Amino acid sequence: MSVTAAKGFTAAGIAAGIKENGNPDLALVVNNGPRRAAAGVFTANRVKAAPVLWSEQVLKSGQLAAVVLNSGGANACTGPKGFQDTHATAEKAAEVLGVGAGEVAVCSTGLIGVLLPMDKLLPGVGTAAAQLSEHGGEKAALAIKTTDTVHKTSVAGKDGWTVGGMAKGAGMLAPGLATMLVVLTTDADLDTETLDKALRAATKVTFDRVDSDGCMSTNDTVLLLASGASGVTPTYDDFAEAVRQVCDDLGRQLIRDAEGASKDIKVEVVNAATEDDAVEVGRSIARNNLLKCAIHGEDPNWGRVLSAIGTTKAAFEPDRLNVAINGVWVCKNGGVGEDRDKVDMRYREVHIVADLSAGDATATIWTNDLTADYVHENSAYSS
Amino acid sequence: MSVTAAKGFTAAGIAAGIKENGNPDLALVVNNGPRRAAAGVFTANRVKAAPVLWSEQVLKSGQLAAVVLNSGGANACTGPKGFQDTHATAEKAAEVLGVGAGEVAVCSTGLIGVLLPMDKLLPGVGTAAAQLSEHGGEKAALAIKTTDTVHKTSVAGKDGWTVGGMAKGAGMLAPGLATMLVVLTTDADLDTETLDKALRAATKVTFDRVDSDGCMSTNDTVLLLASGASGVTPTYDDFAEAVRQVCDDLGRQLIRDAEGASKDIKVEVVNAATEDDAVEVGRSIARNNLLKCAIHGEDPNWGRVLSAIGTTKAAFEPDRLNVAINGVWVCKNGGVGEDRDKVDMRYREVHIVADLSAGDATATIWTNDLTADYVHENSAYSS
Repeated sequence: MSVTAAKGFTAAGIAAGIKENGNPDLALVVNNGPRRAAAGVFTANRVKAAPVLWSEQVLKSGQLAAVVLNSGGANACTGPKGFQDTHATAEKAAEVLGVGAGEVAVCSTGLIGVLLPMDKLLPGVGTAAAQLSEHGGEKAALAIKTTDTVHKTSVAGKDGWTVGGMAKGAGMLAPGLATMLVVLTTDADLDTETLDKALRAATKVTFDRVDSDGCMSTNDTVLLLASGASGVTPTYDDFAEAVRQVCDDLGRQLIRDAEGASKDIKVEVVNAATEDDAVEVGRSIARNNLLKCAIHGEDPNWGRVLSAIGTTKAAFEPDRLNVAINGVWVCKNGGVGEDRDKVDMRYREVHIVADLSAGDATATIWTNDLTADYVHENSAYSS
Repeated sequence: MSVTAAKGFTAAGIAAGIKENGNPDLALVVNNGPRRAAAGVFTANRVKAAPVLWSEQVLKSGQLAAVVLNSGGANACTGPKGFQDTHATAEKAAEVLGVGAGEVAVCSTGLIGVLLPMDKLLPGVGTAAAQLSEHGGEKAALAIKTTDTVHKTSVAGKDGWTVGGMAKGAGMLAPGLATMLVVLTTDADLDTETLDKALRAATKVTFDRVDSDGCMSTNDTVLLLASGASGVTPTYDDFAEAVRQVCDDLGRQLIRDAEGASKDIKVEVVNAATEDDAVEVGRSIARNNLLKCAIHGEDPNWGRVLSAIGTTKAAFEPDRLNVAINGVWVCKNGGVGEDRDKVDMRYREVHIVADLSAGDATATIWTNDLTADYVHENSAYSS
């Protein structure tokens, strides 16, 4: 599974001592070819961490030989020294792997504004390289966890080729991506352009539609590496669908593990005039703190859905809005609909449908409830 | 004080039985003239409650004889019947006061999507009218409370004229106004146009810059009524400043009473290219759940300030951003600044300064921390 499900990849995950508690904190993923095509998407936050600035630059070649990932520190807002540290990390990996530093992406996650302990990290890269294995995918996925309670991996594919991946992320999840590091690998024989197209199409409808707490990170990175080791070139549609499936699965795992969450909320906007309208409305609902508290309390408070819709610029008439919660149309034509006592909210998954009666476009945004545990987790210590 | 501080006004606040717990829930404010000029601003939410639709219509004449306010039900998303109920409320007030229904504004606050108990509300209007008094301002302010823990009043003025006011609001506070009902009164002798100009100027820099939880209500209303009873016509600047003072004071009281809050946070954006940039950045910081949790935990987590700034379209360079928390410049030039351990966060008020190094415009947004009590208050029951 994970990043070593596809042929041509090795990986490792170790405890380099970056985290003071001794947990795994350094992962290495290596593409052994024959191809080394790669594509990436990065945070839309204008305050970008050093590893994002580095990896964006590296990706311009469309080639990656390896990815170094660390938890225990985001290396964001760390100035020129932070960028030097990222560069040194890539140089170290290049040295031990016998590749060029310009073929090595770097990803970091953890507290912003703190320099990484390079005296631990650099030797760790050597240690990880010595442990690279075709079975190292799980260990790599474990090493990138921060507040994640579980590691996240996924796999898809058919007819002799595979797409696999790993993700970390549990907070700061928001469109334009999240504090989310994702590495996807495939042994399909495809060029950079195809990878890039499939990756952008997939993230647009998966990670970009996952919104845990409306907070956009400085470090979000999604990489897709192709080894070509299967010798198979799938059709674009088959490949894009496999990438979408893996991204969708990983995105859902991120929401399920969101900090403090007790409910997974599927916000489905239907009958919108445009897909952009549907996404805007879905995000507005998904970000409404009052609604997220109500869902936590198992209260089908559709008034908070309507007030969230009302803050958008989407095309709709207030008296034509309908809202269903877990299949019960509690709001019809902008007013009281079916009996709210019919809504069964005992289960973890909650399904909200917002019908704008304005067209035939649709979009689904996933979010989670807002809980006292979220507050506790994000106030009790720096992260 | 409150709405009867200015001459020419009477008010009352009673328990009409709209709230099941028997607390005061109906207020009446009457302008006895000689003038009856009035202005109003309303929620920017496109899903507007019936009383907002009614009062916006009524205000087009620039005249108000009275305002009826109820807590215990928002009369929002209640369809044609809800609008009929608002209309009937205005008719009832008009009948008992001997004025036209078109001179009566109506304000409601409470749960969305529930019809008001008109069999309690309409007799209550009669009861309130019988208790109108020049000393009724406090009782009126008490009757409009919902989850407010205290009632909010303020007064300003000079040279023989007065501006007084009352407000309710404790959640759903956000720009474009908040679930916030505010009635301001003055005995200054001024026309509708002057009132409207002063009110819009004041709300733009006060209530519009108070953002408790990013949630915009369906019912927000701010009204300003002038009786002319002092016989004094102040200069526009003096009057506008008094209105601004009362709005600023009431806005600060709303934040201090925000649901579950333990910290009042002043977000001051300086050296922005434009005032719009400063407001956008201030709101982005004020709405960042992760930062609000950190402040609750007395953690001067400036990285979360930077990541919030990074989501805006404002003019800035990441490596020229500076952030001070309670006077300590913890972030300089986009990186680590003074020692964060120097930041003293023991007190209720927290002052964040975000320096964009991009111009000389400034704006201040007030918000509060995000706490487990907020979650509890908004998940334990419908509101």
